[in-house]
Amino acid sequence: MNVTVHGHTRHYRTVTFDRAHNAVLLIEQRLLPHAFKIVATRNFRETAAAIRDMVVRGAGAIGATAAYGLAQGAFAFRGRSLEKYSRHIEAVYRTLKAARPTAVDPVNAMHAVRAAMRAGKTVEEQQALALAAAEEFANEDVRHCEAIGRCGAKLIRNGMRILTHCNAGWLAFVDIGTATAPLYAAQAQGKKFHVFCSETRPRSQGATLTAWELAQQKISHQVIADSAAGHLMQRGEIDLVIVGSDRTLGRTGEVANKIGTYTKAVLAERHGIPFYVAIPLSTIDWHLKSGFDIPIEERHESEVLGAWGAVTTPNSEFRTPNSGKHVYVRVANPTSGARNPGFDVTPPELITGIITPVGIFKPKELWSKRHQLGFHAQLDVER
Amino acid sequence: MNVTVHGHTRHYRTVTFDRAHNAVLLIEQRLLPHAFKIVATRNFRETAAAIRDMVVRGAGAIGATAAYGLAQGAFAFRGRSLEKYSRHIEAVYRTLKAARPTAVDPVNAMHAVRAAMRAGKTVEEQQALALAAAEEFANEDVRHCEAIGRCGAKLIRNGMRILTHCNAGWLAFVDIGTATAPLYAAQAQGKKFHVFCSETRPRSQGATLTAWELAQQKISHQVIADSAAGHLMQRGEIDLVIVGSDRTLGRTGEVANKIGTYTKAVLAERHGIPFYVAIPLSTIDWHLKSGFDIPIEERHESEVLGAWGAVTTPNSEFRTPNSGKHVYVRVANPTSGARNPGFDVTPPELITGIITPVGIFKPKELWSKRHQLGFHAQLDVER
Repeated sequence: MNVTVHGHTRHYRTVTFDRAHNAVLLIEQRLLPHAFKIVATRNFRETAAAIRDMVVRGAGAIGATAAYGLAQGAFAFRGRSLEKYSRHIEAVYRTLKAARPTAVDPVNAMHAVRAAMRAGKTVEEQQALALAAAEEFANEDVRHCEAIGRCGAKLIRNGMRILTHCNAGWLAFVDIGTATAPLYAAQAQGKKFHVFCSETRPRSQGATLTAWELAQQKISHQVIADSAAGHLMQRGEIDLVIVGSDRTLGRTGEVANKIGTYTKAVLAERHGIPFYVAIPLSTIDWHLKSGFDIPIEERHESEVLGAWGAVTTPNSEFRTPNSGKHVYVRVANPTSGARNPGFDVTPPELITGIITPVGIFKPKELWSKRHQLGFHAQLDVER
Repeated sequence: MNVTVHGHTRHYRTVTFDRAHNAVLLIEQRLLPHAFKIVATRNFRETAAAIRDMVVRGAGAIGATAAYGLAQGAFAFRGRSLEKYSRHIEAVYRTLKAARPTAVDPVNAMHAVRAAMRAGKTVEEQQALALAAAEEFANEDVRHCEAIGRCGAKLIRNGMRILTHCNAGWLAFVDIGTATAPLYAAQAQGKKFHVFCSETRPRSQGATLTAWELAQQKISHQVIADSAAGHLMQRGEIDLVIVGSDRTLGRTGEVANKIGTYTKAVLAERHGIPFYVAIPLSTIDWHLKSGFDIPIEERHESEVLGAWGAVTTPNSEFRTPNSGKHVYVRVANPTSGARNPGFDVTPPELITGIITPVGIFKPKELWSKRHQLGFHAQLDVER
C-alpha cells in the first residue's frame, strides 16, 4: 500500500527481494507507528532473525519472508554439486523454520519453493526457480487479499461507520491485508466511510498498526478504547464490524482471533450489527472439531501491566519523533500480577459471514464448501 | 483501609482533619500506585486546589474534603463579627464549590456543614460546629460504605472469582468504598476469593487504583485487559461481577458508570453471571426519565492515544520506584485521532441487583422504594 515519507508517497510491500544485493527488504515493523524504515537482511540467517525478532509479523508476511529467505540462501551457495546444494538448502530451511516454530505459513511457503526448485537441472536453474517460486508465493498472497477486498467491498456503503479490532492489515501480509482489504477496495471504488480502530490492548495493534495503515491511505478513522465499542453501538454509531482471524475451524465455523474479538461479536449481535470475519484460505483449520480444542496462548503479564510508547506530552500537537524510540512504562500497581490470554474464540452463531478470496460464506457453510475452500490442498501439506 | 509503607501497616482514610495545624490531610492519589504519600493543605485555597487538581477524586472523598475545607476556612477567620464571619464563609464556600463545578457531593457536604453551623451563637461556636459537621459527614460516608459491604458480602461465597471494573474503591470515598465494600466485608468474614481487575482503559483505574487497593488488603487478584473478560466468562472463570456507578436513575433503574461497564453487563447476561452495582444513595438521580438524557462526557483524545506510567523494563521483577514519577507515552499512530466517551449506560434488564446501604434491590424497584432510598432528602438539597 502507499506510504508517505517526507512528503513523498510511494507503494510498498511489507517484503520484497533485491536480486542485485541478494537481500530481503522488510518494513521494520517494530518502529511503527512512530517511524517508517526499510531494512535489508544480508543473508538467510539475518532473515531468520528478522522473523524471530518480529521485524516482520503476520501470517502472509512471514510466509513470503521465509520464501524469499530460502531463495536468498539458495543464491548464497557457491558450487555445482546438486547434492551439496540440496544439503545446504535443507540447512537454510531448518534455520528459517526455527525462527517461528509454531507458524504454519513459513513452512507452507518454503514447501512451495522447494517443490518448484526440483524442476531445475543445475544449481543455477534451481536458484532461479526458487526465486520465481518465492515471487509467486508473494504475488499469490497479494491476489488472495485483492480477492477478499472485491468480495468484502460489496458490504460497504457510503457513510458507513465500520469497527475493526487488532490488525489484520497489509502489514500482516505482503500487501492489502484481509480485514482491511474491503476498506481499501471500497476506497478505490470511491466510497466514503469512517473506521473505528479498537485499540486492542494489551499490545495495541489497532491503535498502532491499523491506525497507521488507515492514516497512510487517508481513510477517515479514529482510535477508541476497547471498552467504548458497546457504547457506540448502543448510540447507533457503528454499522458494520470486520475483523481478521488467526484460525477458523472449517468443521464448526468457530473463529479464533485476537482477545476481544468475541466481545465485539456479542455486542454486535445484541445491536443487530453485521459481524464479518475476513480470512485467507490458509488460516482455515480443517482438522479440529471444537473451538475448545484451540490452545489459547497465555502471554507474558508485562503486556497487560504496562504499555509501549514514545515519551511525549499529552496534547494534540504530538508528531512523530524522528527516533521512533519506544519505552515501556509500568501502568498497573507494581505489586499486582495479570492474566493475559492472547486469543478468544467466537462461535458461528455470532458471525454474519466469512469473507474469503472465493466469496462470502456463512460460518456453518465452510465444511460443505470445503472443496472450493482449499480443503485438499491444505491436507497435502505438512503442518 | 490498611496501607503498608516501609513494612509498617496502619489504617488510613483518604481524607482527615488535623485540628492542631488547621490542615486537611489527603492521600496524594496522583502518585498512586507507584508511591504513597500524605499531603497537608495549609488553607482552604490549597484544599480547593487539591480537589481541582485531582490530588483527591471520587464522590465521597471530594465531598468530605470540601466539608473539611469549609471548616478549615472557618477556623482561619479572626474576629467576633458574625456578619463578617458569614461573608467569609460564603467566600470559602464559593472557592471550594468552583474547584469541581459539576460535582454534587461537595455542594451537598458543604450545605450540611453550613446548616449545622447556624446553631452556634458565636464565631467560636460556629467554627466548632462546622468541624463537628464535617467529621459527621465523613463518618456517615464510612457508615454507608460499611452498610453496602454488609449487604453485598452475602453474595460472595468461598472460592468465587469476581470481576470488577474501574475503581469505586475506598480511594473514591472516605474509606471502604462501594464496589469494593462487599470484598472487604467478605474478607473480614474470612472468605477466600479471587478478583479480576479489568484495567479500565483509557485511564486504567482498575489496573492502578483497584489493584493497589486489593494488594494493600492482601486480597488475591489479577489485572486483565478489558477485552479479556468475555473469554474468561466463556471458559467459566468468572462467577460474579460487581461495579460502581456514577449516576443511577431512580425512575428507570439505568446505571451510568465508567465506559466499558455496559459491555461487561452484556457479557455477564450472555453467560448467566450475576451482575451487581454497588452505590451510595447520593448517586441516585430521581429526576431524569431516560438514560439517553444522561450527558456522556467526551474526554480528551490523549487518554486513548497514550498511557501514563513509570518507565521501566517489562519484566516481572518490577518494583515501585521511589520517585513515583510518571511519564506520558504516545502509543497510537501519531497522526490519528480518537473518540473518548467517558461513561456508558447499562439498562436495568442486564442488572441482577443494586447493592445499597439499606439493602439489595432490583433496578426496577428503586422508584417504588424511593422513600427508603433517600428520595425526599435529596430533593431538599440544591443540585
